[in-house]
Amino acid sequence: MAQKMKAAIFVEKGRIVLDEKPIPEIGPLDALIRITTTTICGTDVHILKGEYPVAKGLTIGHEPVGIIEKLGSGVKGLKEGQRVIAGAITPSGWSTACLCGCGAQDGAGTKHGFKAMGGWRFGNTIDGAQAEYLCVPDAMANLAPIDEGVTDEQVLMCPDIMSTGLSGAETGQIRIGDCVAVFAQGPIGLCATAGAKLMGATKIIAVDTFPARLDMARRMGADVVVDYRAENPVDAIMRITDGRGVDVAIEALGTQTTFEAALRVLRPGGVLSSLGVYSSDLTIPLDAFSAGLGDKSIRTTLCPGGKERMRRMQDVISSGRVDLSGLVTHRFKLDQIEEAYDLFANQRDGVLKVAITP
Amino acid sequence: MAQKMKAAIFVEKGRIVLDEKPIPEIGPLDALIRITTTTICGTDVHILKGEYPVAKGLTIGHEPVGIIEKLGSGVKGLKEGQRVIAGAITPSGWSTACLCGCGAQDGAGTKHGFKAMGGWRFGNTIDGAQAEYLCVPDAMANLAPIDEGVTDEQVLMCPDIMSTGLSGAETGQIRIGDCVAVFAQGPIGLCATAGAKLMGATKIIAVDTFPARLDMARRMGADVVVDYRAENPVDAIMRITDGRGVDVAIEALGTQTTFEAALRVLRPGGVLSSLGVYSSDLTIPLDAFSAGLGDKSIRTTLCPGGKERMRRMQDVISSGRVDLSGLVTHRFKLDQIEEAYDLFANQRDGVLKVAITP
Amino acid sequence: MAQKMKAAIFVEKGRIVLDEKPIPEIGPLDALIRITTTTICGTDVHILKGEYPVAKGLTIGHEPVGIIEKLGSGVKGLKEGQRVIAGAITPSGWSTACLCGCGAQDGAGTKHGFKAMGGWRFGNTIDGAQAEYLCVPDAMANLAPIDEGVTDEQVLMCPDIMSTGLSGAETGQIRIGDCVAVFAQGPIGLCATAGAKLMGATKIIAVDTFPARLDMARRMGADVVVDYRAENPVDAIMRITDGRGVDVAIEALGTQTTFEAALRVLRPGGVLSSLGVYSSDLTIPLDAFSAGLGDKSIRTTLCPGGKERMRRMQDVISSGRVDLSGLVTHRFKLDQIEEAYDLFANQRDGVLKVAITP
Amino acid sequence: MAQKMKAAIFVEKGRIVLDEKPIPEIGPLDALIRITTTTICGTDVHILKGEYPVAKGLTIGHEPVGIIEKLGSGVKGLKEGQRVIAGAITPSGWSTACLCGCGAQDGAGTKHGFKAMGGWRFGNTIDGAQAEYLCVPDAMANLAPIDEGVTDEQVLMCPDIMSTGLSGAETGQIRIGDCVAVFAQGPIGLCATAGAKLMGATKIIAVDTFPARLDMARRMGADVVVDYRAENPVDAIMRITDGRGVDVAIEALGTQTTFEAALRVLRPGGVLSSLGVYSSDLTIPLDAFSAGLGDKSIRTTLCPGGKERMRRMQDVISSGRVDLSGLVTHRFKLDQIEEAYDLFANQRDGVLKVAITP
Repeated sequence: MAQKMKAAIFVEKGRIVLDEKPIPEIGPLDALIRITTTTICGTDVHILKGEYPVAKGLTIGHEPVGIIEKLGSGVKGLKEGQRVIAGAITPSGWSTACLCGCGAQDGAGTKHGFKAMGGWRFGNTIDGAQAEYLCVPDAMANLAPIDEGVTDEQVLMCPDIMSTGLSGAETGQIRIGDCVAVFAQGPIGLCATAGAKLMGATKIIAVDTFPARLDMARRMGADVVVDYRAENPVDAIMRITDGRGVDVAIEALGTQTTFEAALRVLRPGGVLSSLGVYSSDLTIPLDAFSAGLGDKSIRTTLCPGGKERMRRMQDVISSGRVDLSGLVTHRFKLDQIEEAYDLFANQRDGVLKVAITP
Repeated sequence: MAQKMKAAIFVEKGRIVLDEKPIPEIGPLDALIRITTTTICGTDVHILKGEYPVAKGLTIGHEPVGIIEKLGSGVKGLKEGQRVIAGAITPSGWSTACLCGCGAQDGAGTKHGFKAMGGWRFGNTIDGAQAEYLCVPDAMANLAPIDEGVTDEQVLMCPDIMSTGLSGAETGQIRIGDCVAVFAQGPIGLCATAGAKLMGATKIIAVDTFPARLDMARRMGADVVVDYRAENPVDAIMRITDGRGVDVAIEALGTQTTFEAALRVLRPGGVLSSLGVYSSDLTIPLDAFSAGLGDKSIRTTLCPGGKERMRRMQDVISSGRVDLSGLVTHRFKLDQIEEAYDLFANQRDGVLKVAITP
Repeated sequence: MAQKMKAAIFVEKGRIVLDEKPIPEIGPLDALIRITTTTICGTDVHILKGEYPVAKGLTIGHEPVGIIEKLGSGVKGLKEGQRVIAGAITPSGWSTACLCGCGAQDGAGTKHGFKAMGGWRFGNTIDGAQAEYLCVPDAMANLAPIDEGVTDEQVLMCPDIMSTGLSGAETGQIRIGDCVAVFAQGPIGLCATAGAKLMGATKIIAVDTFPARLDMARRMGADVVVDYRAENPVDAIMRITDGRGVDVAIEALGTQTTFEAALRVLRPGGVLSSLGVYSSDLTIPLDAFSAGLGDKSIRTTLCPGGKERMRRMQDVISSGRVDLSGLVTHRFKLDQIEEAYDLFANQRDGVLKVAITP
Repeated sequence: MAQKMKAAIFVEKGRIVLDEKPIPEIGPLDALIRITTTTICGTDVHILKGEYPVAKGLTIGHEPVGIIEKLGSGVKGLKEGQRVIAGAITPSGWSTACLCGCGAQDGAGTKHGFKAMGGWRFGNTIDGAQAEYLCVPDAMANLAPIDEGVTDEQVLMCPDIMSTGLSGAETGQIRIGDCVAVFAQGPIGLCATAGAKLMGATKIIAVDTFPARLDMARRMGADVVVDYRAENPVDAIMRITDGRGVDVAIEALGTQTTFEAALRVLRPGGVLSSLGVYSSDLTIPLDAFSAGLGDKSIRTTLCPGGKERMRRMQDVISSGRVDLSGLVTHRFKLDQIEEAYDLFANQRDGVLKVAITP
């Protein structure tokens, strides 16, 4: 009889509960990970609220830190007992999408090898990380060892928040001397701010309203912060840039308001790098788009994954280039995860990210 | 007293008339060109209809072929009597936008050096090419000699239609072996089709409904044509690509319908390269955008200009790589330009492009 | 007892012989292919001559066309009986090098995931394709189905010659309107010429001396051919380009002479795209390099592999964009492979490529 | 009679002397600058030693900080009395090279618009900046205002050292998480180290031997320093990278030894970004080049110029991202420039850069 473990399971709209499930069985290319730390993402809250559909009974969570418990028969180059992380997105490596350089859209099981969001499997199409154990598919492409002396919490942001946030800067193709605006300073926006600094932007304008987030934005590299309740952020940014606009605007919330503002503050030829998860159709105002003649671009990015991405994220942390330690504001045991969801979903008590330890 | 010339002038909404104006005076960096051939663009029709505002009394037209009549005192490297073309867009070379690699948005006269559509001056902010003479600003950056033995009509598409159309493929970053859809096969769409072939796309799907345009699309390189009246083009393209979608979709019309269809047929990670001039707000449907998680990009391009661009366009023609001779379907004298506008604006008689000779 | 097959085996310097070997056993991620057509590469001749070291007893050959005989237990998405090709280079998909976009240098079994030429396994580090059967590693990343109605010979150049040749143009980042010189018009140089045309170069200058190769170069897209015995090719190219030089020079032989000539004909800011396999140190002349101040680049490329690359190559063929059928000049049975080596190694009888069928 | 000024003039090999010359006359596109601070470059020492030929009587120097004294009749957008800098390289903006994005190789006066090092005019082909006054050609493309409150010394490195050094990182296309080695930590190497950090490299290895330079390298962002007299730097870097090698190696000296070492420490697929001015032919060792099959690139960069480049450099300084104030180790009056050359050419007294004020 299969051994049991605890896992946070989607039951129905409004209910994610801690329950018992069998410890996952693994196939030849998989690895079984014993989770030592994980966290809750804004996307998990969308799932909780029924805004993003997943199967009933699915284990939620896509940000694993743990120890290899068991390796599939075909897995080479890893060993049991290693401390590892895996990205939120787990590209197979061998799909057409991966071989096209687009692993986040890995449709490994599909006819053509592409599938929108196909690389997002944990807590979406397969059981996720908010559990005692996790089965990691395509382990050779996805498991990245953790350096000695590095704590779980230090790398806890790598799988999703940090990889996503930094990709906002990367997809924006920020150059040395660019001016960048980042809309919203939740965990992803804060990492986007850090990414803009990491790539050489020399004027970074961070937009939010909560003082704690604006403070953290400054710590992440923002040169100027804009409180959108104090001033219309488009006006503020045009004032701050002396009417020029920004080279790159990063959208890190997922609303029409921020999307539109990001488009409006772009200089001609600029790039809107969009990270948000939208929940309704978007409107592109004709004037903000220069009727299609302004050489503007809108680019979206889904969190890059894979072990090499995770290696890079860890090196950013361990080199001291970026310090994300302030993002974990609350800590819970897995047994308390329903309480953690309650706090996080309601954004109480200045929460940024929580750490969950089984 | 200044000598007079004939010019097609915007009088008011609905009226572009041929009238007399003084031959332009030139400044130190300018050149005076005697026009030998020019044409009418769809954008000129927008001006005629009052959909795009220009000053009353402005000479219209931005596609000049001619002979250098006189050079400004500061102009080096050109000589009077040379046959030349200039792009529809005339970057200064020295603006911040130009030095950023974004010359079409040249705001040379502005505080920051960027201005949306700022590089489009002829027939927009200064007198244009539908006249006997034209003053070309920043002549050293803009005048490209015409090779011997090449006719005016052979290079007549270079200044706008061809440069714009090819840029749709270039901005789409088409790679060898890509699958590309081009929405609308007017003159710009046809050149986009030619551009897709020129960059190595191996399956090009052209969408339109007029048989003459679909025929021409095949001549430009389309492997498959879709008549949007016979079948929903999104369905058709998904069928043709066996459910995969296209790597790059080029929008060459400027409507919500084509924009949205272009987004819908993109594979995850694909690029929508937009060339159209839109006349109202656009909607991005949530599903077609994968909620922002599909790694999709939307990129717009304004016709690249400058003498080096014109050199490249001419070399494409003279090397025989692309044959645009079939695009000129009708010919008029400058004296008949009102008649030409009437034909072209109403898309009568299978017109694609007209040639106007003073 | 293992079944036997025939295979071309490296015995010692100067001797590749046809012998019997056991049909390969396959692991969980492998596929066993029954070879239906293969060929001999210039690199195999280097092996024959002892210029490139491989293990004694190794089966030679890296250009397989065949039918899936058997799939490893972990292989998904393929089925036995399918006609397939695999690239000369077989990236694993899951190595660090692959996840960095550099699969040809796949060091899947190494500590860091990078290894120079590590992706070249067939006939180099594992048994190759000049045999009745071939074990293809990482089959899911490497096997590309052949379209119905396409013959073996039509796709025989895809695994190496074509993928390598086209990459010379791709790595050169050829743009529409570029001027390109290709040094040497052997099979790879001919494919580089085809690649330059495929990417929109408008003046392609092909250098060789054999009339049959220069003729073929014209068929592949060369606008001008230079016989290096009739004129110093550097002088010729500077004359043809009117003193300007070329935007991209592709080296497709692997000698100091061609490397140096390629560097000398580059315009300032140009790219030398190097495909050749060199056999001695190279010298960069100070003047040809503008003392390091000419913004010149030298970029090398090892044949890109993987199933998506093979798909693209096949689509180039099946779309009719490039016709390589003329490259196969001679045909042999596997039993005659020693004779084929003799012909090919000595470049007799105008041979370009041979087809070998078991 | 023309007014006189003092200027440092190349007389003959071994002699640069301060002498009197007429204050330059300016043409319609030029600006006359009154120099307030300038410096001496390693290239000037090459000129002094006769290793780089310039015309006798030429004023030396290419790093100007000053005040606009007079503007040419055709110059717009600038005003007399403004504090400005110009880059060492002064692209015209309108040449073919500029319009191709390669302004450092601006051959504005040549037939084809390209000329190796053509954009380097000050102290090379026209009179330079080590004088009381300087004529800046193509002023609209080249003069960048200095922000209020910023001192001359703060921007003195922008025209050459900083623009060159940072371009080493940019041309290397450093990505977040890369490992980078920088060979030689003179002023340019130090700026390359700063550039590597600015672009997100997470392990930067700086090579030199002088303790003061290694200390400064650490301040610029080096994570590890290697004293090449204490350990062979190739061995050291392979040890530090645990056998992997670096993603990008920057050569900032101009010798065979550093060039070769840079090539040897590159991982397969890596980029050698070369900034050095070489004085003899270079050798590419076959093994270090993987016989041309290692996907390695060698890219050279000449200091990018133009007003937008200067704007970006200044913003890097004024944003506090990089602090170069420590680079100016000695200060002289223009009257003492011969003494300054003596100190700098002999690298006495730990000199890094000198400031010269008329």
